[in-house]
Amino acid sequence: MIKTLDELAVKVADSGRKYRIAVAWGQDPNTLGALDRAVKAGFAEPFLIGNRNRIEEESDNLGIDIGSCTVIEEKDEAGSAVKAVEMVRDGSADILMKGALGTDKFLKAVLDKSAGLMKPGAVMSYVCAVQLPEYHKLLFVTDTAVLPFPDLDQKVAMANYAIEMAHRFGIVRPKVALISATEKVSGRFPNTVDYATMCKMAEKGQIKDCIMDGPVDIFLACDPASAPLKGVDTPLRGDADILLFPTLESCNPFYKGLMLFGKGELAGMLTGTTHPVVLMSRSESENSKFYCIALSCLMAGGD
Amino acid sequence: MIKTLDELAVKVADSGRKYRIAVAWGQDPNTLGALDRAVKAGFAEPFLIGNRNRIEEESDNLGIDIGSCTVIEEKDEAGSAVKAVEMVRDGSADILMKGALGTDKFLKAVLDKSAGLMKPGAVMSYVCAVQLPEYHKLLFVTDTAVLPFPDLDQKVAMANYAIEMAHRFGIVRPKVALISATEKVSGRFPNTVDYATMCKMAEKGQIKDCIMDGPVDIFLACDPASAPLKGVDTPLRGDADILLFPTLESCNPFYKGLMLFGKGELAGMLTGTTHPVVLMSRSESENSKFYCIALSCLMAGGD
Repeated sequence: MIKTLDELAVKVADSGRKYRIAVAWGQDPNTLGALDRAVKAGFAEPFLIGNRNRIEEESDNLGIDIGSCTVIEEKDEAGSAVKAVEMVRDGSADILMKGALGTDKFLKAVLDKSAGLMKPGAVMSYVCAVQLPEYHKLLFVTDTAVLPFPDLDQKVAMANYAIEMAHRFGIVRPKVALISATEKVSGRFPNTVDYATMCKMAEKGQIKDCIMDGPVDIFLACDPASAPLKGVDTPLRGDADILLFPTLESCNPFYKGLMLFGKGELAGMLTGTTHPVVLMSRSESENSKFYCIALSCLMAGGD
Repeated sequence: MIKTLDELAVKVADSGRKYRIAVAWGQDPNTLGALDRAVKAGFAEPFLIGNRNRIEEESDNLGIDIGSCTVIEEKDEAGSAVKAVEMVRDGSADILMKGALGTDKFLKAVLDKSAGLMKPGAVMSYVCAVQLPEYHKLLFVTDTAVLPFPDLDQKVAMANYAIEMAHRFGIVRPKVALISATEKVSGRFPNTVDYATMCKMAEKGQIKDCIMDGPVDIFLACDPASAPLKGVDTPLRGDADILLFPTLESCNPFYKGLMLFGKGELAGMLTGTTHPVVLMSRSESENSKFYCIALSCLMAGGD
């Protein structure tokens, strides 16, 4: 079981495999710096798609040796995304990564019906593995970035993505906490009604290989002292692996609060795609950017 | 300016005043323990309304001397709330406090149209002053506990309550961050439309004595490095005093995450009432319970 983000990076490096990463518009200091660490850790082989002069200039400025990178000249920002997606589709790369281009242009190429990277009929979402000094293991948090107001089907998809990721970290039956302000199911909080439905689906085996409960608050999910104090019976026992949030407005401030005030680090990844996609915020720390690449490699690896 | 919760307690103690606190069903270890600290700090004079035998038994068990408390015999749980509210209404007490009775029964007495404690036409809400080792001052967070999906008028009320509280802490023009997942106003996130309206109201002086901006994410609100990195211009400058959240589902996990993983402490209070009301969760730490009482005393004090 992988319990920290450094263990994640070590596990990926130990696989001995070099993952080929097609990087759209990979010519900014942020992207080049994060990739350089992954190259030095021995698990990344980047294909930098963009303006060759710019790429060489930026890497010179940073003192980064791009000798182990393949540079592919592409003058157009949106074109670099199309090219990178194409490389993943035709098997010339294992992982897609966004560089300095706009998220909209990047996602347009990923979402393209005929030439994109989405699994047929799949929901696009986002899962973060969050590391906190004050928690005894990693917390998988969803959706930090993509779905504004997920409906029932989208929540089920979010849960399944997070469960799949937890399995890859060696957690056989992750504990999934469906987060709300309260532990009561109530029509006043429509998301709690979705949660009740999801718990029944898990009980019937429609959502597999997890222990699911909700609605619960953060204390019931992550603090073993809370359930006895509140007189609530929950199989989560304050030991949740996965926190599923009802809305983006709820999840986004939660994880950002912990990054800023809880000394958190994270590894995040887009989900619903045929291959791992690295899509990081510039606000993430240097460490988190490196961990995002390592996570994509873990998810790209066979078992 | 009060910058920590200990400074808050010192300020209240230094006023030299003893605040009379009417405690409904004040006969559980939690309530008695928190009150005992406030009595010892010199600013509280509790009126314990409940079962006299039980009160004496519990305080004996805890080794607490209730010599400076007045015990008022009342056999009925709901009746203790009615009696406590009555004492505040008729001027025999300055502050109302919930003891071991259910929140529903307690709030019924507070909300009673003719015999309750609400200001006419006021919105009931909740503000917490949150102390975090990783932030350089207190953060006023609302609404952690009461309003599920506040509409525009309720959001304005929430802002005004938090601004009023910040003023009491000596912050002349608090910076109010209207929290979302993004800094863009968009019909896809209806709360951001309310936020845009509120900013205009603040500009026109309809919301007074503050610097307001939103929507913003947590980084723009509280991290000075974020605005330059994102190329966003905001008068908050990563130095927010007040965080206003769009829903209870958003605010509640945020503050609980910081209590659990950010070594947070808090002082919280019900708002919209004619007199301060202490309504704490059993999950709060011993320190936070004491700070809640101190906060109510600060808010009860003249200027």
